Amino acid sequence: MLEATRQVKTTSSRGDVRAIRQAIRAAALTSHTAGLAGGFLQANLVIMPEIYALDFMRYCQRNPRPCPLVGVSDTGNPMMTTLGADIDVRTDIPSYNVYQKGAFVEQVLNITEYWRDDMVAFALGCSFTFEHALQQAGIAMRHIDNNYVVPMFQTNIQTVAAGLFSGNLVVSMRSIRKSQLQQTEDICAAFPLAHGTPIHSGNPECIGIYDINKPHWGAAIPVAEGEIVSFWACGVTSQVAIQQAQIPLCITHTPGCMLITDIDERASVPVFITKGEMK
Amino acid sequence: MLEATRQVKTTSSRGDVRAIRQAIRAAALTSHTAGLAGGFLQANLVIMPEIYALDFMRYCQRNPRPCPLVGVSDTGNPMMTTLGADIDVRTDIPSYNVYQKGAFVEQVLNITEYWRDDMVAFALGCSFTFEHALQQAGIAMRHIDNNYVVPMFQTNIQTVAAGLFSGNLVVSMRSIRKSQLQQTEDICAAFPLAHGTPIHSGNPECIGIYDINKPHWGAAIPVAEGEIVSFWACGVTSQVAIQQAQIPLCITHTPGCMLITDIDERASVPVFITKGEMK
Repeated sequence: MLEATRQVKTTSSRGDVRAIRQAIRAAALTSHTAGLAGGFLQANLVIMPEIYALDFMRYCQRNPRPCPLVGVSDTGNPMMTTLGADIDVRTDIPSYNVYQKGAFVEQVLNITEYWRDDMVAFALGCSFTFEHALQQAGIAMRHIDNNYVVPMFQTNIQTVAAGLFSGNLVVSMRSIRKSQLQQTEDICAAFPLAHGTPIHSGNPECIGIYDINKPHWGAAIPVAEGEIVSFWACGVTSQVAIQQAQIPLCITHTPGCMLITDIDERASVPVFITKGEMK
Repeated sequence: MLEATRQVKTTSSRGDVRAIRQAIRAAALTSHTAGLAGGFLQANLVIMPEIYALDFMRYCQRNPRPCPLVGVSDTGNPMMTTLGADIDVRTDIPSYNVYQKGAFVEQVLNITEYWRDDMVAFALGCSFTFEHALQQAGIAMRHIDNNYVVPMFQTNIQTVAAGLFSGNLVVSMRSIRKSQLQQTEDICAAFPLAHGTPIHSGNPECIGIYDINKPHWGAAIPVAEGEIVSFWACGVTSQVAIQQAQIPLCITHTPGCMLITDIDERASVPVFITKGEMK
Protein backbone atom coordinates (compact mmCIF):
# COMPACT_ATOMS: atom_id res chain seq x y z
CA MET A 1 0.00 0.00 0.00
CA LEU A 2 2.72 2.46 0.84
CA GLU A 3 4.40 2.37 -2.53
CA ALA A 4 0.98 2.75 -4.09
CA THR A 5 0.34 5.89 -2.07
CA ARG A 6 3.81 7.23 -2.81
CA GLN A 7 3.06 6.93 -6.54
CA VAL A 8 0.23 9.46 -6.14
CA LYS A 9 2.10 12.38 -7.68
CA THR A 10 0.07 15.17 -9.10
CA THR A 11 -3.48 15.03 -7.84
CA SER A 12 -4.89 13.14 -4.89
CA SER A 13 -8.37 13.01 -3.39
CA ARG A 14 -9.23 13.85 0.21
CA GLY A 15 -9.72 10.12 0.72
CA ASP A 16 -6.16 9.44 -0.48
CA VAL A 17 -4.87 12.08 1.91
CA ARG A 18 -6.69 10.56 4.85
CA ALA A 19 -5.43 7.10 3.95
CA ILE A 20 -1.88 8.44 3.96
CA ARG A 21 -2.38 10.10 7.35
CA GLN A 22 -3.88 6.88 8.71
CA ALA A 23 -0.79 4.99 7.53
CA ILE A 24 1.41 7.59 9.23
CA ARG A 25 -0.66 7.40 12.44
CA ALA A 26 -0.26 3.59 12.43
CA ALA A 27 3.51 4.06 11.99
CA ALA A 28 3.30 2.15 8.70
CA LEU A 29 4.74 5.18 6.89
CA THR A 30 7.72 6.68 8.69
CA SER A 31 9.75 8.34 5.93
CA HIS A 32 9.64 11.63 4.02
CA THR A 33 6.45 12.98 2.50
CA ALA A 34 7.82 14.49 -0.72
CA GLY A 35 5.66 13.47 -3.67
CA LEU A 36 2.79 12.28 -1.46
CA ALA A 37 -0.71 13.79 -1.46
CA GLY A 38 -0.19 15.82 -4.62
CA GLY A 39 -2.24 19.01 -4.68
CA PHE A 40 -2.57 19.25 -0.89
CA LEU A 41 -0.71 21.66 1.36
CA GLN A 42 2.15 20.21 3.39
CA ALA A 43 3.56 22.08 6.35
CA ASN A 44 6.45 22.36 8.76
CA LEU A 45 5.45 21.60 12.36
CA VAL A 46 6.66 23.33 15.53
CA ILE A 47 5.25 22.52 18.99
CA MET A 48 6.11 24.39 22.20
CA PRO A 49 4.65 25.35 25.58
CA GLU A 50 2.08 28.16 25.53
CA ILE A 51 4.31 30.44 27.58
CA TYR A 52 6.52 30.91 24.48
CA ALA A 53 3.73 30.76 21.89
CA LEU A 54 2.84 34.45 21.68
CA ASP A 55 6.46 35.42 21.06
CA PHE A 56 6.91 32.65 18.49
CA MET A 57 3.73 33.76 16.72
CA ARG A 58 5.04 37.34 16.69
CA TYR A 59 8.32 36.00 15.25
CA CYS A 60 6.40 34.31 12.42
CA GLN A 61 4.28 37.43 11.80
CA ARG A 62 7.44 39.55 11.54
CA ASN A 63 9.24 37.07 9.26
CA PRO A 64 6.53 35.79 6.95
CA ARG A 65 8.88 34.86 4.11
CA PRO A 66 10.77 32.15 6.06
CA CYS A 67 7.94 31.46 8.57
CA PRO A 68 4.55 31.65 6.79
CA LEU A 69 2.03 30.67 9.45
CA VAL A 70 -0.71 28.43 8.03
CA GLY A 71 -2.18 27.01 11.24
CA VAL A 72 -2.08 27.31 15.03
CA SER A 73 -3.74 24.83 17.40
CA ASP A 74 -5.72 25.73 20.48
CA THR A 75 -3.61 25.39 23.62
CA GLY A 76 -3.57 21.77 24.77
CA ASN A 77 -5.68 20.52 21.86
CA PRO A 78 -3.66 18.15 19.64
CA MET A 79 -6.27 18.28 16.86
CA MET A 80 -5.25 20.81 14.21
CA THR A 81 -8.85 21.58 13.33
CA THR A 82 -8.21 24.47 10.96
CA LEU A 83 -6.08 22.35 8.61
CA GLY A 84 -8.32 19.34 8.16
CA ALA A 85 -10.60 16.70 9.58
CA ASP A 86 -9.04 14.39 12.17
CA ILE A 87 -5.45 15.70 12.16
CA ASP A 88 -3.74 14.73 15.43
CA VAL A 89 -0.35 16.44 15.63
CA ARG A 90 0.85 13.87 18.21
CA THR A 91 0.75 10.97 15.75
CA ASP A 92 0.08 12.14 12.20
CA ILE A 93 3.61 13.18 11.21
CA PRO A 94 5.97 10.38 10.09
CA SER A 95 8.81 11.41 12.40
CA TYR A 96 9.51 14.07 15.03
CA ASN A 97 12.65 15.73 16.43
CA VAL A 98 12.63 16.59 20.12
CA TYR A 99 14.75 19.48 21.46
CA GLN A 100 15.40 20.43 25.08
CA LYS A 101 17.09 23.74 25.87
CA GLY A 102 18.02 24.05 22.21
CA ALA A 103 19.75 20.67 22.01
CA PHE A 104 18.51 17.73 19.94
CA VAL A 105 17.37 14.93 22.25
CA GLU A 106 15.81 12.24 20.11
CA GLN A 107 13.88 11.33 16.97
CA VAL A 108 10.52 9.63 17.62
CA LEU A 109 7.58 8.29 15.60
CA ASN A 110 4.96 9.90 17.81
CA ILE A 111 4.95 12.44 20.63
CA THR A 112 2.11 11.08 22.73
CA GLU A 113 4.36 10.94 25.79
CA TYR A 114 5.66 14.49 25.28
CA TRP A 115 2.26 16.14 24.72
CA ARG A 116 0.97 18.28 27.58
CA ASP A 117 -2.07 20.44 28.28
CA ASP A 118 -0.04 23.61 27.74
CA MET A 119 1.28 22.71 24.28
CA VAL A 120 0.60 24.79 21.15
CA ALA A 121 1.27 23.45 17.65
CA PHE A 122 2.24 25.70 14.75
CA ALA A 123 2.15 24.76 11.06
CA LEU A 124 4.32 26.76 8.64
CA GLY A 125 4.08 26.61 4.85
CA CYS A 126 6.81 24.71 3.00
CA SER A 127 8.61 24.78 -0.33
CA PHE A 128 6.91 21.65 -1.70
CA THR A 129 4.04 23.91 -2.77
CA PHE A 130 5.96 26.18 -5.12
CA GLU A 131 8.23 23.36 -6.29
CA HIS A 132 5.16 21.47 -7.56
CA ALA A 133 3.95 24.58 -9.34
CA LEU A 134 7.35 25.19 -10.94
CA GLN A 135 7.68 21.59 -12.09
CA GLN A 136 4.20 21.70 -13.59
CA ALA A 137 5.33 24.76 -15.58
CA GLY A 138 8.32 22.81 -16.94
CA ILE A 139 10.94 24.41 -14.68
CA ALA A 140 13.39 21.72 -13.54
CA MET A 141 14.01 21.18 -9.83
CA ARG A 142 17.47 19.54 -9.95
CA HIS A 143 17.48 18.37 -6.34
CA ILE A 144 14.20 16.53 -6.87
CA ASP A 145 15.32 15.06 -10.20
CA ASN A 146 18.50 13.82 -8.49
CA ASN A 147 16.73 12.80 -5.26
CA TYR A 148 18.90 15.16 -3.18
CA VAL A 149 17.84 17.22 -0.19
CA VAL A 150 17.75 20.83 -1.38
CA PRO A 151 20.93 22.76 -0.37
CA MET A 152 20.36 25.27 2.45
CA PHE A 153 22.60 28.08 3.71
CA GLN A 154 22.83 30.49 6.61
CA THR A 155 22.87 34.08 5.31
CA ASN A 156 24.09 37.39 6.74
CA ILE A 157 20.50 38.70 6.84
CA GLN A 158 19.07 39.10 10.32
CA THR A 159 15.48 38.13 10.91
CA VAL A 160 13.27 40.50 12.92
CA ALA A 161 13.45 39.35 16.56
CA ALA A 162 10.48 38.66 18.86
CA GLY A 163 11.15 37.90 22.51
CA LEU A 164 13.64 35.03 22.75
CA PHE A 165 13.39 34.26 19.04
CA SER A 166 15.96 35.70 16.65
CA GLY A 167 18.73 34.59 14.30
CA ASN A 168 19.88 34.86 10.73
CA LEU A 169 17.79 33.94 7.73
CA VAL A 170 18.30 30.46 6.26
CA VAL A 171 17.71 30.09 2.52
CA SER A 172 17.30 27.16 0.14
CA MET A 173 19.07 27.31 -3.23
CA ARG A 174 17.85 26.20 -6.65
CA SER A 175 19.54 26.73 -10.01
CA ILE A 176 17.22 28.12 -12.67
CA ARG A 177 17.75 28.75 -16.39
CA LYS A 178 18.17 32.47 -16.91
CA SER A 179 15.42 32.39 -19.52
CA GLN A 180 13.02 30.96 -16.92
CA LEU A 181 13.85 33.27 -14.02
CA GLN A 182 11.05 35.75 -14.62
CA GLN A 183 8.53 32.94 -15.00
CA THR A 184 9.84 31.39 -11.78
CA GLU A 185 9.33 34.64 -9.89
CA ASP A 186 5.86 35.13 -11.33
CA ILE A 187 4.79 31.63 -10.30
CA CYS A 188 6.24 31.91 -6.80
CA ALA A 189 4.62 35.29 -6.21
CA ALA A 190 1.28 33.46 -6.12
CA PHE A 191 2.38 31.47 -3.06
CA PRO A 192 3.03 33.92 -0.22
CA LEU A 193 2.24 31.11 2.25
CA ALA A 194 5.01 28.98 0.73
CA HIS A 195 7.94 31.42 0.94
CA GLY A 196 6.92 33.50 -2.12
CA THR A 197 9.51 34.82 -4.57
CA PRO A 198 13.28 34.32 -4.22
CA ILE A 199 14.85 36.78 -1.80
CA HIS A 200 17.92 36.97 -4.07
CA SER A 201 19.09 35.67 -7.44
CA GLY A 202 22.55 35.98 -8.93
CA ASN A 203 25.39 36.64 -6.52
CA PRO A 204 25.44 34.46 -3.38
CA GLU A 205 28.05 36.73 -1.75
CA CYS A 206 25.46 39.52 -1.59
CA ILE A 207 23.66 37.55 1.12
CA GLY A 208 26.76 36.19 2.84
CA ILE A 209 27.14 32.86 1.05
CA TYR A 210 30.74 32.35 -0.04
CA ASP A 211 30.78 28.72 -1.22
CA ILE A 212 27.65 27.28 -2.81
CA ASN A 213 29.31 23.87 -2.86
CA LYS A 214 29.27 23.71 0.93
CA PRO A 215 25.67 24.02 2.08
CA HIS A 216 24.98 24.04 5.83
CA TRP A 217 22.19 21.51 5.29
CA GLY A 218 21.26 19.31 2.31
CA ALA A 219 23.45 18.41 -0.66
CA ALA A 220 25.37 20.63 -3.11
CA ILE A 221 23.93 20.77 -6.61
CA PRO A 222 25.95 21.55 -9.75
CA VAL A 223 25.06 24.75 -11.59
CA ALA A 224 25.00 24.35 -15.37
CA GLU A 225 25.97 26.88 -18.05
CA GLY A 226 23.19 29.41 -18.58
CA GLU A 227 21.75 28.92 -15.13
CA ILE A 228 21.45 31.37 -12.29
CA VAL A 229 21.30 30.54 -8.59
CA SER A 230 18.18 31.66 -6.75
CA PHE A 231 17.64 31.71 -3.00
CA TRP A 232 14.33 31.34 -1.19
CA ALA A 233 13.60 32.06 2.47
CA CYS A 234 13.49 28.66 4.20
CA GLY A 235 11.47 27.21 7.08
CA VAL A 236 14.69 25.98 8.72
CA THR A 237 15.03 29.62 9.83
CA SER A 238 12.43 28.91 12.51
CA GLN A 239 14.34 25.86 13.74
CA VAL A 240 17.51 27.92 14.10
CA ALA A 241 15.56 30.57 16.04
CA ILE A 242 14.04 27.93 18.31
CA GLN A 243 17.39 26.30 19.03
CA GLN A 244 18.97 29.67 19.78
CA ALA A 245 16.10 30.51 22.14
CA GLN A 246 16.96 27.38 24.18
CA ILE A 247 13.43 26.93 25.43
CA PRO A 248 13.01 23.91 27.75
CA LEU A 249 11.05 21.78 25.28
CA CYS A 250 10.31 22.09 21.58
CA ILE A 251 9.21 19.46 19.07
CA THR A 252 9.44 19.75 15.28
CA HIS A 253 8.87 17.44 12.34
CA THR A 254 11.99 15.59 11.21
CA PRO A 255 13.20 17.42 8.06
CA GLY A 256 11.30 16.20 4.99
CA CYS A 257 8.62 14.45 7.10
CA MET A 258 5.89 17.06 6.87
CA LEU A 259 2.36 17.49 8.14
CA ILE A 260 -0.01 16.64 5.27
CA THR A 261 -3.16 18.77 5.46
CA ASP A 262 -6.60 18.68 3.83
CA ILE A 263 -6.04 22.18 2.40
CA ASP A 264 -5.73 22.76 -1.34
CA GLU A 265 -2.12 23.64 -2.15
CA ARG A 266 -3.34 26.69 -4.10
CA ALA A 267 -5.72 28.00 -1.43
CA SER A 268 -5.15 31.67 -0.63
CA VAL A 269 -6.62 31.14 2.84
CA PRO A 270 -5.32 27.99 4.58
CA VAL A 271 -8.41 27.27 6.66
CA PHE A 272 -10.39 24.02 6.58
CA ILE A 273 -14.02 25.03 6.39
CA THR A 274 -16.88 23.33 8.05
CA LYS A 275 -20.45 24.17 7.08
CA GLY A 276 -21.49 27.74 7.76
CA GLU A 277 -18.02 29.17 8.30
CA MET A 278 -16.00 31.47 6.06
CA LYS A 279 -15.08 30.11 2.67
CA MET B 1 -0.88 72.89 7.38
CA LEU B 2 -3.60 70.32 7.89
CA GLU B 3 -5.52 71.08 4.76
CA ALA B 4 -2.24 71.01 2.90
CA THR B 5 -1.48 67.53 4.19
CA ARG B 6 -4.98 66.31 3.44
CA GLN B 7 -4.51 67.34 -0.19
CA VAL B 8 -1.68 64.82 -0.53
CA LYS B 9 -3.66 62.24 -2.48
CA THR B 10 -1.72 59.82 -4.57
CA THR B 11 1.90 59.71 -3.54
CA SER B 12 3.54 60.99 -0.37
CA SER B 13 7.11 60.85 0.88
CA ARG B 14 8.21 59.31 4.17
CA GLY B 15 8.76 62.86 5.38
CA ASP B 16 5.13 63.76 4.59
CA VAL B 17 3.98 60.69 6.49
CA ARG B 18 6.00 61.59 9.55
CA ALA B 19 4.72 65.16 9.44
CA ILE B 20 1.17 63.82 9.42
CA ARG B 21 1.88 61.52 12.37
CA GLN B 22 3.48 64.41 14.24
CA ALA B 23 0.36 66.47 13.68
CA ILE B 24 -1.74 63.59 14.97
CA ARG B 25 0.52 63.15 18.01
CA ALA B 26 0.15 66.85 18.79
CA ALA B 27 -3.64 66.47 18.52
CA ALA B 28 -3.64 69.00 15.68
CA LEU B 29 -5.21 66.40 13.39
CA THR B 30 -8.08 64.55 15.06
CA SER B 31 -10.29 63.46 12.17
CA HIS B 32 -10.35 60.63 9.64
CA THR B 33 -7.27 59.63 7.65
CA ALA B 34 -8.88 58.78 4.29
CA GLY B 35 -6.90 60.37 1.47
CA LEU B 36 -3.88 61.11 3.67
CA ALA B 37 -0.39 59.66 3.15
CA GLY B 38 -1.14 58.28 -0.33
CA GLY B 39 0.88 55.19 -1.16
CA PHE B 40 1.44 54.20 2.47
CA LEU B 41 -0.28 51.37 4.30
CA GLN B 42 -2.97 52.38 6.79
CA ALA B 43 -4.19 49.95 9.41
CA ASN B 44 -6.92 49.17 11.91
CA LEU B 45 -5.68 49.20 15.51
CA VAL B 46 -6.69 46.86 18.34
CA ILE B 47 -5.05 46.98 21.80
CA MET B 48 -5.70 44.50 24.61
CA PRO B 49 -4.02 42.90 27.65
CA GLU B 50 -1.49 40.18 26.84
CA ILE B 51 -3.59 37.51 28.55
CA TYR B 52 -6.01 37.66 25.57
CA ALA B 53 -3.39 38.33 22.88
CA LEU B 54 -2.55 34.75 21.87
CA ASP B 55 -6.22 33.90 21.32
CA PHE B 56 -6.80 37.13 19.40
CA MET B 57 -3.77 36.43 17.24
CA ARG B 58 -5.11 32.91 16.57
CA TYR B 59 -8.47 34.50 15.66
CA CYS B 60 -6.73 36.72 13.10
CA GLN B 61 -4.67 33.80 11.72
CA ARG B 62 -7.87 31.76 11.27
CA ASN B 63 -9.79 34.64 9.67
CA PRO B 64 -7.23 36.37 7.47
CA ARG B 65 -9.78 37.84 5.03
CA PRO B 66 -11.51 40.08 7.61
CA CYS B 67 -8.50 40.29 10.00
CA PRO B 68 -5.23 40.47 8.01
CA LEU B 69 -2.53 40.92 10.63
CA VAL B 70 0.12 43.40 9.50
CA GLY B 71 1.82 44.16 12.83
CA VAL B 72 1.96 43.12 16.48
CA SER B 73 3.79 45.09 19.17
CA ASP B 74 5.97 43.61 21.87
CA THR B 75 4.08 43.32 25.15
CA GLY B 76 4.15 46.64 27.01
CA ASN B 77 6.06 48.44 24.26
CA PRO B 78 3.92 51.20 22.71
CA MET B 79 6.33 51.64 19.79
CA MET B 80 5.12 49.68 16.75
CA THR B 81 8.66 49.13 15.50
CA THR B 82 7.82 46.75 12.65
CA LEU B 83 5.55 49.28 10.92
CA GLY B 84 7.78 52.34 10.93
CA ALA B 85 10.19 54.64 12.70
CA ASP B 86 8.81 56.38 15.77
CA ILE B 87 5.22 55.09 15.75
CA ASP B 88 3.74 55.38 19.25
CA VAL B 89 0.37 53.64 19.35
CA ARG B 90 -0.63 55.64 22.46
CA THR B 91 -0.67 58.97 20.63
CA ASP B 92 -0.25 58.54 16.87
CA ILE B 93 -3.83 57.69 15.94
CA PRO B 94 -6.25 60.64 15.54
CA SER B 95 -8.94 59.17 17.80
CA TYR B 96 -9.49 56.03 19.89
CA ASN B 97 -12.55 54.12 21.13
CA VAL B 98 -12.28 52.54 24.58
CA TYR B 99 -14.33 49.44 25.46
CA GLN B 100 -14.73 47.77 28.84
CA LYS B 101 -16.40 44.35 29.07
CA GLY B 102 -17.55 44.78 25.48
CA ALA B 103 -19.28 48.12 26.08
CA PHE B 104 -18.17 51.42 24.56
CA VAL B 105 -16.85 53.72 27.32
CA GLU B 106 -15.42 56.80 25.65
CA GLN B 107 -13.69 58.32 22.63
CA VAL B 108 -10.29 59.86 23.37
CA LEU B 109 -7.47 61.60 21.47
CA ASN B 110 -4.73 59.58 23.14
CA ILE B 111 -4.57 56.53 25.39
CA THR B 112 -1.57 57.46 27.51
CA GLU B 113 -3.61 56.98 30.68
CA TYR B 114 -4.98 53.61 29.57
CA TRP B 115 -1.64 52.11 28.47
CA ARG B 116 -0.17 49.44 30.76
CA ASP B 117 2.89 47.20 30.80
CA ASP B 118 0.81 44.18 29.78
CA MET B 119 -0.72 45.76 26.66
CA VAL B 120 -0.28 44.35 23.14
CA ALA B 121 -1.18 46.36 20.03
CA PHE B 122 -2.34 44.73 16.81
CA ALA B 123 -2.50 46.38 13.40
CA LEU B 124 -4.85 44.89 10.78
CA GLY B 125 -4.86 45.77 7.07
CA CYS B 126 -7.69 48.00 5.82
CA SER B 127 -9.71 48.60 2.68
CA PHE B 128 -8.09 51.94 1.84
CA THR B 129 -5.30 49.95 0.15
CA PHE B 130 -7.41 48.19 -2.47
CA GLU B 131 -9.72 51.17 -2.89
CA HIS B 132 -6.74 53.30 -3.97
CA ALA B 133 -5.66 50.61 -6.42
CA LEU B 134 -9.17 50.30 -7.87
CA GLN B 135 -9.55 54.07 -8.25
CA GLN B 136 -6.18 54.27 -9.99
CA ALA B 137 -7.45 51.67 -12.46
CA GLY B 138 -10.51 53.83 -13.18
CA ILE B 139 -12.99 51.80 -11.14
CA ALA B 140 -15.34 54.20 -9.34
CA MET B 141 -15.73 54.00 -5.56
CA ARG B 142 -19.14 55.61 -5.11
CA HIS B 143 -18.94 56.04 -1.35
CA ILE B 144 -15.68 57.97 -1.72
CA ASP B 145 -16.99 60.06 -4.62
CA ASN B 146 -20.05 60.92 -2.49
CA ASN B 147 -18.07 61.29 0.75
CA TYR B 148 -20.12 58.54 2.46
CA VAL B 149 -18.86 55.95 4.91
CA VAL B 150 -18.89 52.63 3.03
CA PRO B 151 -21.99 50.53 3.85
CA MET B 152 -21.26 47.51 6.06
CA PHE B 153 -23.43 44.51 6.91
CA GLN B 154 -23.48 41.55 9.28
CA THR B 155 -23.64 38.29 7.30
CA ASN B 156 -24.79 34.75 8.11
CA ILE B 157 -21.21 33.47 7.71
CA GLN B 158 -19.55 32.38 10.93
CA THR B 159 -15.92 33.23 11.47
CA VAL B 160 -13.59 30.53 12.82
CA ALA B 161 -13.51 30.93 16.61
CA ALA B 162 -10.41 31.15 18.80
CA GLY B 163 -10.80 31.18 22.57
CA LEU B 164 -13.26 33.92 23.54
CA PHE B 165 -13.26 35.42 20.04
CA SER B 166 -15.99 34.48 17.58
CA GLY B 167 -18.90 36.00 15.70
CA ASN B 168 -20.30 36.45 12.24
CA LEU B 169 -18.40 37.98 9.35
CA VAL B 170 -18.99 41.67 8.64
CA VAL B 171 -18.66 42.79 5.01
CA SER B 172 -18.38 46.13 3.24
CA MET B 173 -20.36 46.64 0.03
CA ARG B 174 -19.38 48.40 -3.17
CA SER B 175 -21.29 48.55 -6.45
CA ILE B 176 -19.17 47.73 -9.49
CA ARG B 177 -19.95 47.86 -13.20
CA LYS B 178 -20.46 44.30 -14.43
CA SER B 179 -17.85 44.91 -17.14
CA GLN B 180 -15.28 45.81 -14.48
CA LEU B 181 -15.94 42.96 -12.04
CA GLN B 182 -13.19 40.65 -13.30
CA GLN B 183 -10.68 43.50 -13.29
CA THR B 184 -11.76 44.39 -9.75
CA GLU B 185 -11.17 40.83 -8.58
CA ASP B 186 -7.78 40.65 -10.32
CA ILE B 187 -6.61 43.88 -8.68
CA CYS B 188 -7.85 42.91 -5.22
CA ALA B 189 -6.21 39.48 -5.43
CA ALA B 190 -2.86 41.28 -5.21
CA PHE B 191 -3.74 42.62 -1.74
CA PRO B 192 -4.22 39.65 0.60
CA LEU B 193 -3.24 41.92 3.50
CA ALA B 194 -6.09 44.29 2.63
CA HIS B 195 -9.02 41.85 2.55
CA GLY B 196 -8.22 40.43 -0.93
CA THR B 197 -10.99 39.59 -3.42
CA PRO B 198 -14.72 40.00 -2.71
CA ILE B 199 -16.15 37.10 -0.75
CA HIS B 200 -19.36 37.34 -2.78
CA SER B 201 -20.74 39.28 -5.74
CA GLY B 202 -24.29 39.24 -7.04
CA ASN B 203 -26.99 38.12 -4.63
CA PRO B 204 -26.81 39.63 -1.12
CA GLU B 205 -29.31 37.06 0.21
CA CYS B 206 -26.74 34.32 -0.37
CA ILE B 207 -24.74 35.71 2.55
CA GLY B 208 -27.70 36.68 4.73
CA ILE B 209 -28.17 40.31 3.66
CA TYR B 210 -31.85 41.02 2.94
CA ASP B 211 -31.92 44.80 2.50
CA ILE B 212 -28.90 46.55 1.01
CA ASN B 213 -30.54 49.89 1.75
CA LYS B 214 -30.25 49.28 5.50
CA PRO B 215 -26.57 48.78 6.31
CA HIS B 216 -25.63 48.01 9.92
CA TRP B 217 -22.87 50.63 9.72
CA GLY B 218 -22.13 53.37 7.17
CA ALA B 219 -24.50 54.83 4.59
CA ALA B 220 -26.59 53.14 1.89
CA ILE B 221 -25.41 53.72 -1.67
CA PRO B 222 -27.65 53.54 -4.75
CA VAL B 223 -26.88 50.76 -7.24
CA ALA B 224 -27.08 51.92 -10.86
CA GLU B 225 -28.26 49.98 -13.92
CA GLY B 226 -25.54 47.60 -15.11
CA GLU B 227 -23.86 47.42 -11.74
CA ILE B 228 -23.40 44.43 -9.48
CA VAL B 229 -22.99 44.53 -5.69
CA SER B 230 -19.75 43.07 -4.33
CA PHE B 231 -18.97 42.30 -0.70
CA TRP B 232 -15.54 42.31 0.92
CA ALA B 233 -14.55 40.88 4.30
CA CYS B 234 -14.30 43.87 6.66
CA GLY B 235 -12.10 44.71 9.63
CA VAL B 236 -15.18 45.59 11.69
CA THR B 237 -15.49 41.80 12.08
CA SER B 238 -12.70 41.97 14.66
CA GLN B 239 -14.49 44.70 16.60
CA VAL B 240 -17.66 42.60 16.76
CA ALA B 241 -15.60 39.61 17.99
CA ILE B 242 -13.92 41.77 20.64
CA GLN B 243 -17.19 43.21 21.89
CA GLN B 244 -18.76 39.74 22.07
CA ALA B 245 -15.74 38.47 24.00
CA GLN B 246 -16.43 41.12 26.69
CA ILE B 247 -12.81 41.35 27.76
CA PRO B 248 -12.21 43.84 30.60
CA LEU B 249 -10.40 46.44 28.47
CA CYS B 250 -9.90 46.86 24.74
CA ILE B 251 -8.97 49.95 22.74
CA THR B 252 -9.45 50.42 19.01
CA HIS B 253 -9.06 53.27 16.55
CA THR B 254 -12.22 55.30 16.02
CA PRO B 255 -13.66 54.13 12.66
CA GLY B 256 -11.95 55.93 9.78
CA CYS B 257 -9.13 57.26 12.00
CA MET B 258 -6.45 54.75 11.07
CA LEU B 259 -2.85 54.10 12.00
CA ILE B 260 -0.67 55.53 9.19
CA THR B 261 2.47 53.41 8.74
CA ASP B 262 5.80 53.82 6.93
CA ILE B 263 5.10 50.67 4.89
CA ASP B 264 4.54 50.86 1.12
CA GLU B 265 0.87 50.15 0.42
CA ARG B 266 1.93 47.56 -2.18
CA ALA B 267 4.48 45.75 0.00
CA SER B 268 3.94 41.99 0.08
CA VAL B 269 5.66 41.82 3.49
CA PRO B 270 4.50 44.56 5.90
CA VAL B 271 7.71 44.87 7.87
CA PHE B 272 9.71 48.07 8.32
CA ILE B 273 13.32 47.15 7.67
CA THR B 274 16.29 48.50 9.47
CA LYS B 275 19.76 47.89 8.09
CA GLY B 276 20.82 44.25 7.99
CA GLU B 277 17.38 42.75 8.47
CA MET B 278 15.18 40.93 5.96
CA LYS B 279 14.03 42.94 2.99
